[in-house]
Amino acid sequence: MARISFETMQEVITEAFVKAGMNEQEAKTCARIHTQASCDGIYSHGLNRVARFVDYVKRGWVDINAKPSLVKKLGAIEIHDGNRGTGILNAFMATDRAIAIAAEQGVGIVALRNTTHWMRGGSYGWYAADKGYVAISWTNTESCMPSWGSKEPRLGNNPFVMAVPRKKGHIVLDMAMSQYAYGKLQVTRLKGQQLPFPGGFDKDGNLTSEPGPIEESMRILPMGYWKGSGFSILLDTLAAVLSEGLATNEIDKIQQGSCTGCSQIFIVIDPRKLGGEEFTDRVADGVVDYVNSSAPDERSTEVMYPGEGELRTRADHLANGIVADDGVWAEVLALAGRSA
Amino acid sequence: MARISFETMQEVITEAFVKAGMNEQEAKTCARIHTQASCDGIYSHGLNRVARFVDYVKRGWVDINAKPSLVKKLGAIEIHDGNRGTGILNAFMATDRAIAIAAEQGVGIVALRNTTHWMRGGSYGWYAADKGYVAISWTNTESCMPSWGSKEPRLGNNPFVMAVPRKKGHIVLDMAMSQYAYGKLQVTRLKGQQLPFPGGFDKDGNLTSEPGPIEESMRILPMGYWKGSGFSILLDTLAAVLSEGLATNEIDKIQQGSCTGCSQIFIVIDPRKLGGEEFTDRVADGVVDYVNSSAPDERSTEVMYPGEGELRTRADHLANGIVADDGVWAEVLALAGRSA
Repeated sequence: MARISFETMQEVITEAFVKAGMNEQEAKTCARIHTQASCDGIYSHGLNRVARFVDYVKRGWVDINAKPSLVKKLGAIEIHDGNRGTGILNAFMATDRAIAIAAEQGVGIVALRNTTHWMRGGSYGWYAADKGYVAISWTNTESCMPSWGSKEPRLGNNPFVMAVPRKKGHIVLDMAMSQYAYGKLQVTRLKGQQLPFPGGFDKDGNLTSEPGPIEESMRILPMGYWKGSGFSILLDTLAAVLSEGLATNEIDKIQQGSCTGCSQIFIVIDPRKLGGEEFTDRVADGVVDYVNSSAPDERSTEVMYPGEGELRTRADHLANGIVADDGVWAEVLALAGRSA
Repeated sequence: MARISFETMQEVITEAFVKAGMNEQEAKTCARIHTQASCDGIYSHGLNRVARFVDYVKRGWVDINAKPSLVKKLGAIEIHDGNRGTGILNAFMATDRAIAIAAEQGVGIVALRNTTHWMRGGSYGWYAADKGYVAISWTNTESCMPSWGSKEPRLGNNPFVMAVPRKKGHIVLDMAMSQYAYGKLQVTRLKGQQLPFPGGFDKDGNLTSEPGPIEESMRILPMGYWKGSGFSILLDTLAAVLSEGLATNEIDKIQQGSCTGCSQIFIVIDPRKLGGEEFTDRVADGVVDYVNSSAPDERSTEVMYPGEGELRTRADHLANGIVADDGVWAEVLALAGRSA
């Protein structure tokens, strides 16, 4: 494991993206998001995801020259077409527009269709919260998980984000609909370990904590069984309905990697126009204090709120460098045209 | 088990509420919601909940004479104070206002503070969908579940509702944050059965499918473990922030039964102002067909979408009468001043 400074990691990823054909400024923005993801401990969508993005660009699955276009505007709602451009840039455009509308009208909704992978969904929640806004956001995706009662993967993992700004640290939820990501299954299997709780069914329908048989069957478990399954279905339907875009069953036909052609929703609300910044902070502090001060269970020494873990990892990584896998770092260095 | 017609059940509940002091029209509305809940198979908030509501009224925990009042209006957002009036009536007012705003502006948000139990959360989703609107709605509640990593109940069960209108049957998610309701634990224990999946921890911190030890420890499991815990925290924070109302830690101090003083959010969007009714139906049908036609697993003969089970139960109950527990029915008949 290497420890890389934020600046160096962002610089190298920027170079990799420029080499893939992006302009300097856009490359830098995207590199910042990948770097921040790793910095916050969300490794799956940080440095680890750079090579895959470059691969998608080369295959033509992401059009780095495409710009999003406004489809429709109605009061506090806008629909934009991502034109299969860079997912991160499209998602920032959408968040910025939703913020601009919310700044005027209290709430802004941007529905973005035909976009590509936004990488770490939480990025846009943290971004809005940094500017003092509340955000609710989600994307649909291609299938990777069976509906509850089925053995055939037909549901997307559909990350869902909620963020509330708070001076001492935003409260940010960033969760996908499966109990575990496939990445977690792989890492656990490579370590020869079991999942902490059952993560899916093997090919014969037995619930298991063994990652290998679940990877094989593709029968990962929705979080909360029928609940996560239902939530995934609603997020998918609503994303497509509001953006006049594609639902999972249509995204599945595209077959251009993860999320190409997907639909995303960005709901932003300005709490300063409601109870105000001080009130929001007081409520959020009250919630956090209640959680933090509750009695830890037998397996825990403390109880954390959503986002707290990311802030801790961030602080450590900013002080000591971002943890990076040597092989992955070498791969990105090579993409940047640097030697390891 | 008795089978009671919709009309008879609504009539008897109406009489019970009138006897408790409500006016005829409001009693009829509330009775319809309780009856519809039982009719759709959501027994916990149907007929079964009538006596408890009457008890709350008698204790002064619900003020049936209070009317909600507008606190603030800002573009597409309104904040109302429920003044601890009847939860169902307040929630309908909020949904109706959100619908009226959405009809004009595409989206309407009503944040309702200081209200009381809304009974079945799905009621308001089904209602909005019947009128062709998309709805996202939730409430916070008093504590009944530990945060992930804690053994002390400090999270509300915070039901969350999403509804998309569809001619052949709306897609409606109505889920609380715990894997199982306490009612489910009780029913399972009384049958001498185990839960289908682990439902919580016993007092020593062992994960268990035995309902009794979980009821005793009050350590019910959030759906998806850390995920449902995080979601509950965000729903609570956001409900209080947007409504300028109380969060769970403050509701806990009230100690007047379930949900008294709680905060609720009603987000309504008019899809007819976006892609239109036909487009919405096409997307929703596509999602439903994809789910319905997926291969059932070893334990299932079919795969259903959220809301489908309720529609089936409704059809059976409308044809053959609503299933009601004899004892509960006798209790409500008595409250109505009728003999069993």
